Amino acid sequence: MERSKGYRISELAQRFGLEARGDVAGIIHGVAPLARAQAGQLTFLANPRYASELAVTGAGVVVLAAEHADASPVPALIAKDDPYLAYARIAALFEQLPAAQPGVHPSAVVAADARIAPSACIGPGCVIEDGAEIAAGVVLGPHCVIGADCTIAEQSRLGANVTLVTRVTLGKRVLIHPGAVLGADGFGIARDRDGWIKVPQLGGVRIGDDCEIGANTTIDRGALEDTVLEEDVRLDNQIQIAHNVHIGAHTALAGCAAVAGSARIGRNCLIAGSAGILGHLEVTDGVTITAMSLVTHSIRTPGVYSSGAPIEENRAWRRNAVRMRHLDEMARRITALERQLQALTKEQD
Amino acid sequence: MERSKGYRISELAQRFGLEARGDVAGIIHGVAPLARAQAGQLTFLANPRYASELAVTGAGVVVLAAEHADASPVPALIAKDDPYLAYARIAALFEQLPAAQPGVHPSAVVAADARIAPSACIGPGCVIEDGAEIAAGVVLGPHCVIGADCTIAEQSRLGANVTLVTRVTLGKRVLIHPGAVLGADGFGIARDRDGWIKVPQLGGVRIGDDCEIGANTTIDRGALEDTVLEEDVRLDNQIQIAHNVHIGAHTALAGCAAVAGSARIGRNCLIAGSAGILGHLEVTDGVTITAMSLVTHSIRTPGVYSSGAPIEENRAWRRNAVRMRHLDEMARRITALERQLQALTKEQD
Amino acid sequence: MERSKGYRISELAQRFGLEARGDVAGIIHGVAPLARAQAGQLTFLANPRYASELAVTGAGVVVLAAEHADASPVPALIAKDDPYLAYARIAALFEQLPAAQPGVHPSAVVAADARIAPSACIGPGCVIEDGAEIAAGVVLGPHCVIGADCTIAEQSRLGANVTLVTRVTLGKRVLIHPGAVLGADGFGIARDRDGWIKVPQLGGVRIGDDCEIGANTTIDRGALEDTVLEEDVRLDNQIQIAHNVHIGAHTALAGCAAVAGSARIGRNCLIAGSAGILGHLEVTDGVTITAMSLVTHSIRTPGVYSSGAPIEENRAWRRNAVRMRHLDEMARRITALERQLQALTKEQD
Repeated sequence: MERSKGYRISELAQRFGLEARGDVAGIIHGVAPLARAQAGQLTFLANPRYASELAVTGAGVVVLAAEHADASPVPALIAKDDPYLAYARIAALFEQLPAAQPGVHPSAVVAADARIAPSACIGPGCVIEDGAEIAAGVVLGPHCVIGADCTIAEQSRLGANVTLVTRVTLGKRVLIHPGAVLGADGFGIARDRDGWIKVPQLGGVRIGDDCEIGANTTIDRGALEDTVLEEDVRLDNQIQIAHNVHIGAHTALAGCAAVAGSARIGRNCLIAGSAGILGHLEVTDGVTITAMSLVTHSIRTPGVYSSGAPIEENRAWRRNAVRMRHLDEMARRITALERQLQALTKEQD
Repeated sequence: MERSKGYRISELAQRFGLEARGDVAGIIHGVAPLARAQAGQLTFLANPRYASELAVTGAGVVVLAAEHADASPVPALIAKDDPYLAYARIAALFEQLPAAQPGVHPSAVVAADARIAPSACIGPGCVIEDGAEIAAGVVLGPHCVIGADCTIAEQSRLGANVTLVTRVTLGKRVLIHPGAVLGADGFGIARDRDGWIKVPQLGGVRIGDDCEIGANTTIDRGALEDTVLEEDVRLDNQIQIAHNVHIGAHTALAGCAAVAGSARIGRNCLIAGSAGILGHLEVTDGVTITAMSLVTHSIRTPGVYSSGAPIEENRAWRRNAVRMRHLDEMARRITALERQLQALTKEQD
Repeated sequence: MERSKGYRISELAQRFGLEARGDVAGIIHGVAPLARAQAGQLTFLANPRYASELAVTGAGVVVLAAEHADASPVPALIAKDDPYLAYARIAALFEQLPAAQPGVHPSAVVAADARIAPSACIGPGCVIEDGAEIAAGVVLGPHCVIGADCTIAEQSRLGANVTLVTRVTLGKRVLIHPGAVLGADGFGIARDRDGWIKVPQLGGVRIGDDCEIGANTTIDRGALEDTVLEEDVRLDNQIQIAHNVHIGAHTALAGCAAVAGSARIGRNCLIAGSAGILGHLEVTDGVTITAMSLVTHSIRTPGVYSSGAPIEENRAWRRNAVRMRHLDEMARRITALERQLQALTKEQD
């Protein structure tokens, strides 16, 4: 799809430590999906679900695991460990990031005491408030709002309409997609006789190096302590991170996951889409939560965890769902049956 | 509620192919809910849940099905097929869309090589980047960001703060509500020994004619192929569509539904609110998914599908939920009981 | 964390009606978490989960319940009813809200017939459309869009990028966080033979006094009647409120909850995170819905309600989940066993 500088297949093999099979003299100009790739394009096979497409690919070269190499009708680059990872590294060669002009767009509004590195790029309509600091190589898309006392470290990139409300600190190379809001008030309310009293949210947000934050995701600032993402945490779109949450390094959350206040999630966890994690609990390192599961208690052992009921045709589901409301009664009836049967058997002996 | 040009009831009957009952000389100036409509206002009865309100309506005329016509205390317009559809068509007469002035607001920032039709309306603070194309009659609300190489076809309307990141193509008459983000990076990450490697997202987003996209909804661009909505797809607010998803024509998704990467949804599907669809699977045409259900495998037969457990009073729920963790054991105990009882019965014979 | 004007402990006791224990001469300059608070800082103990941290606190004073007072190693302020509420009131003394300069920022775009009070603060890039009214003391963050015929009452504060589309009325002291969208079209579509017909959304949105609305939350305007939040309703981030919904006073919804069209929720309800409420139903006053539960029918009795299945290790979950699809069959087998056993017992008598 992209057409740019070419790389010889043999050059790619050497550069990325891959074993080449077939004619390695071809030149690669871009990447394309397995089923549609043509001469001059590199593709990959990682998910076995798509293995049948290998036979018909017209790609210039395909990155794959050793077990699929013999089946490839075109030159191959064999990735010993993970073809998807090898593909990710190679594909970066063909990505054309928009060139950002250093400087502050004339329509941006910058407070007198904000500090902006000369090499930073501040897009149209950005608003930089008192005491904000923006480091070298940072790129802000249009209409970003960087609130009081926020700091953004080197090489971070924010898409359009990203808001850092106040006391938000971003590490290096952080990538934030459009519409994300970091540092809004945590949801702290206390009940009085006549209604709700707002609990002041006096903490901040700290985002580690190399984190990625998806479009329209929200990360609230802490009530007293900071809300923290350690380094290399990856958040997809529309994720909600409540106040005082702490997420360990290299943990990834997929779209629409939500984490309630003061929860602590460990390192190297995978939280699938639409999953929920209740407040004030702990999830240890190396835990996977499957989609739309709800974590209602702390998890102290690494592993895969799930909740929910399986999808089925609606009429069958209705019949079964009605019974869920009688599960306890069913269990008691089974126990009663066992006792009666035991008594009956004894009688007969 | 709205007061505008009047239409005689007989004129509405003729124009929309409805059968009129009662005095059709009245003039209608607006629309209102069944229970509150007054003389000069049109209302409708579609959901039988509200049938009891018909007796007390003071409307000038009511659109309804034939079976309810006799019960109407006021003139009626009978819709043979669907009173709600007939109402929708008539109500459009009374909608006053804001008049949009053609031209580019002086505060907008437009790249030198962007192409904007003279009849398009570009609101305050919009940012139009390199290579973007905006066709005749398009209206962009304030602060829209139209990224590099995005194209918007005739008569499409974008609300405030809509962002098209890059390589997004909109068909004709597309309607996008405020805060939606189309074309942000898909969530593609590959695991390396030391952390995550980002997989370049080199595809785009293609939105068909007559699609509607809700407020704060996000649609990511494809990794290699495009993310696609065919024509007349209707998305409510806060929906998440991941990279490479393909949604067939006339399919509608309600609020907060989420579709994971590379899923294919057919035509004429209805996906209810907060439902989830896992990645890399297929849902055929004509499938309905009920609210908060999770689709975990491909669905190849049209019909209605559900998952989840019914809501109940918390103490009863707790007793039952505990048993869900012992369902397999319960099933085995039932089987054991059946065997023992059979053996016992045989003994007795 | 914050350092500002100091208050003597005895002064705080008197001002907030708390009983003081220990040396009340100390001066408090700020607040901090229990485990980290130091001399000069006030902290609190409300959640018994954190009681063990009391022994090690170095705080200047701790707000707590009478039962914990003896265990405090530092001066204490005893809250008879709710230490968290007492803390919330005191902490407000130490919150430093950004000072907002009255006036309209020169980059804002204001329609000729919009009315803006002289003491209102209109931030950079705001767009105020025809007929909008903004009362005294209102603060709009950067890039807010206030659509036609919207009104904002005294002392309300909107964060950055908030959009009020049209016919939205905000009460006094309403607080809206960045990215929220109020008054977008409700999701009203009627099915025609060839596709969807849009149902005009002619109502508005009415938000009562003292409501709080979270970041990226969406509240659609009504189809005919208004969507209504009564006073002191508290919405967290990323909540979806569909058209014609009515929410009673003092009800609070946590992050990612969703309410479908025309649902009516009572007063003093608590809807936990990611919960869903189907359309056209009623939830009475004083109902609590636990996290990720789906309300599928009206609830007419106050209490706590839940749905869902408990989380467990994935392999165990798989074994149990398979059985959920056979629950009805299991129930029938239990009934059959009971009958057979009864027959057998009778035979033996």
